[in-house]
Amino acid sequence: MLGHHWLIELKDCQVDLLSEVAEVARIMEDAVAISGATKVESRFHQFNPYGVSGVIIIMESHFTIHTWPEHAYAAVDIFTCGESIDTAKAVTFLQAAFGASTVQTQLFERGVRPSS
Amino acid sequence: MLGHHWLIELKDCQVDLLSEVAEVARIMEDAVAISGATKVESRFHQFNPYGVSGVIIIMESHFTIHTWPEHAYAAVDIFTCGESIDTAKAVTFLQAAFGASTVQTQLFERGVRPSS
Repeated sequence: MLGHHWLIELKDCQVDLLSEVAEVARIMEDAVAISGATKVESRFHQFNPYGVSGVIIIMESHFTIHTWPEHAYAAVDIFTCGESIDTAKAVTFLQAAFGASTVQTQLFERGVRPSS
Repeated sequence: MLGHHWLIELKDCQVDLLSEVAEVARIMEDAVAISGATKVESRFHQFNPYGVSGVIIIMESHFTIHTWPEHAYAAVDIFTCGESIDTAKAVTFLQAAFGASTVQTQLFERGVRPSS
């Protein structure tokens, strides 16, 4: 297996934090730092009438976020390779930072070799 | 449900195409166009000794790729909202463009409302 890919559903978030690109970028950059990942570069984009998309390329793969303020919802992905990233710590931080009352995570292994 | 998220495993690819950031970027930009998505911005990064990471933010969410030339493998994500993107067409194109002999896809629904 080459990569760990976490799909993270943040529900019932604090809506104002999902609406502003600067806030979303700050929280995601902090999550990267807290996880121990090494940022390479990032792009964040404000949509009209609302919503933010952002990606941070890290040495170990990526963090992404898409927000739907109208549903108080954000979809976050954390894709890592290697064993050095503390994804659980980043998830705990993201839940607190966005004030999410519900968080659901699913983990997928990427690049699994066929058993044959 | 707010987003469709495809996890795409491209295996036994043409190794030279996975190694060069310019090639990977060109193929991914073409895949975005072929799918009918609208590009907002993109970032690609060449790693040493090998491997490329790239993200394209689209109006409808994102395309990402991470390549492992040493395993002839690429992990691609296509995350879309709305019904206008032809992801299957993009996957077919990517398989051909990277010369992948095996492609595995998994689809996840993001932002599904709780049934309660």
